[in-house]
Amino acid sequence: MIAVRFENKTISLLDLPVPEPGDGEALVRVVMAGICATDVEIFHGYAGFAGVPGHEFIGIVESCPSRPEFVGSRVVADINCGCGRCRACLREDARHCPDRKVIGIRGRDGVFAEYCVIPARNLHRVPKTVETIDAVFAEPLAAALEIPQQWHVTGSTRIAVLGDGKLGLLAAIGLNHFSGRVLLIGRHSGKLAIAEKQGIPTFLIDPDIPVETVRHQLGRFDMTVDATGNPDGVNMAISLTRPRGTVVVKTTTREMTTIDLAEITVNELRLAGSRCGDLPLALRFLENRWIDVKPLVEAVYPLSRFDAAFSHAMRKGSLKVLISNDQV
Amino acid sequence: MIAVRFENKTISLLDLPVPEPGDGEALVRVVMAGICATDVEIFHGYAGFAGVPGHEFIGIVESCPSRPEFVGSRVVADINCGCGRCRACLREDARHCPDRKVIGIRGRDGVFAEYCVIPARNLHRVPKTVETIDAVFAEPLAAALEIPQQWHVTGSTRIAVLGDGKLGLLAAIGLNHFSGRVLLIGRHSGKLAIAEKQGIPTFLIDPDIPVETVRHQLGRFDMTVDATGNPDGVNMAISLTRPRGTVVVKTTTREMTTIDLAEITVNELRLAGSRCGDLPLALRFLENRWIDVKPLVEAVYPLSRFDAAFSHAMRKGSLKVLISNDQV
Repeated sequence: MIAVRFENKTISLLDLPVPEPGDGEALVRVVMAGICATDVEIFHGYAGFAGVPGHEFIGIVESCPSRPEFVGSRVVADINCGCGRCRACLREDARHCPDRKVIGIRGRDGVFAEYCVIPARNLHRVPKTVETIDAVFAEPLAAALEIPQQWHVTGSTRIAVLGDGKLGLLAAIGLNHFSGRVLLIGRHSGKLAIAEKQGIPTFLIDPDIPVETVRHQLGRFDMTVDATGNPDGVNMAISLTRPRGTVVVKTTTREMTTIDLAEITVNELRLAGSRCGDLPLALRFLENRWIDVKPLVEAVYPLSRFDAAFSHAMRKGSLKVLISNDQV
Repeated sequence: MIAVRFENKTISLLDLPVPEPGDGEALVRVVMAGICATDVEIFHGYAGFAGVPGHEFIGIVESCPSRPEFVGSRVVADINCGCGRCRACLREDARHCPDRKVIGIRGRDGVFAEYCVIPARNLHRVPKTVETIDAVFAEPLAAALEIPQQWHVTGSTRIAVLGDGKLGLLAAIGLNHFSGRVLLIGRHSGKLAIAEKQGIPTFLIDPDIPVETVRHQLGRFDMTVDATGNPDGVNMAISLTRPRGTVVVKTTTREMTTIDLAEITVNELRLAGSRCGDLPLALRFLENRWIDVKPLVEAVYPLSRFDAAFSHAMRKGSLKVLISNDQV
């Protein structure tokens, strides 16, 4: 099979044997996969990963000895593979298993390939009415929807989402179902328009204007979400959050970040990390057409042109770049 | 009256007129005051303060036209003086009034003087059985006890307090009343012994040993409190906190801090700022002798020797330095 490999900041397109599923695992034919900002970070060295990258996908189960009823199903998957025995796994939170492997990120090959191997317990069937191109967003949408799973958001929680990239858009569109007071703040009117079409107020920010001016204009928010992907985004989020408010941090960067800790202490903010989410919840959003993810798709490439696809995804400001195996 | 003044990193001892209380204010004779790490930060430029510093004290009310029943009482005071009209003040949280003045820190003269002026509504009577030298700890003890007011701490919450300085000791001794699983981690066996005498397990850390080794030895905690006063303390706290755990940040430093934001995201930690606390709660602890603050006193100087007292307080590793006006 054709498969991508990341190692030492180089990308290779290799012809590898189709992987063999182990105990409790399924062989899945990858139909479509998405390139995530984390993949770009991994390429640059984040998480020290070497292997087949990729963790956003939809596939069809080819074989699954432990759960044969899955064969032929369209599936998406939780990316965290826990040990199954530790305290985190026993309370069904493999996301925080200290020995977890993470598909395409840590200790397990991912989905930028014709086939991949996934633990059967990580699979979720995609409802029939969800289109393939929508289902590939299940993983990042779940991550966006994780915010109101972690923190209590009410209909009147004033939320600013900073960053109009893929994650910022998904977070704003998702949070809009939990609070009627979401504002998406970004630098690109074209991207902000995607959120506006789904009923979300937006604010076009000029990077040359000091944050104090923005704060004076917009006031402070109960919750801010840093989805800028920019090491300085968290400081802007801190500045825009009211005392005792919450700054949600979605950034996974290989770089260290400099923050004004005294602002956090004096305003008694909480800086709250947020990572992966609940796939079935995301599938419900897609099945019910509560949100429209299609406007986030910028390009679809065949796996054989992964190099071009990844260069495209690395371009500053690009939206979602997908890999389709039906076009190999 | 004799009063200390900070301005542009210089300390002056001046002869100033006794201040006049305004509407709703009391004139208080300062009996004893404590030098706090924040005072040292302020001296170095934190908060851009110029005026009479000092915010930890016990005094006797000399005059209080709006509440004459206070005259002659021994009092301590909330240091945050709200505008009384904003949303924060209306929900009785002057600590987060955007226009607040803070005694000896922001826009109001403080207590390193023979007399000070305090809004009457900020005053709390000190119970008769509380000694003067104990009552001067009411403000920092309230700040230490603020942690379990903000976050739910149970009898089995595993807590590591990092730093065996004044605040770390008060936090460990205070938190010990809320959880039976507090560990104080510090570098000075003499200071750790103060906590041990009050029943708190301690761990002497060698700064040359990597945090991974410490983590291997101690495991990860549900909650860590950074009371190191050291810009790197928060990173150690982050490393020692279990996934989805809480890192309490008590540091108010003028310096920016570099942190590994990805650790916060991936482990879904919350970094929680914590500042001032509830004075009546601290007075209850002192009145009931639930904790012993006296071992934290390192020296008492007369106000006339403030220079020497402040040099002492600036010494790395010093415990509480007090100013007694009865010795002027």
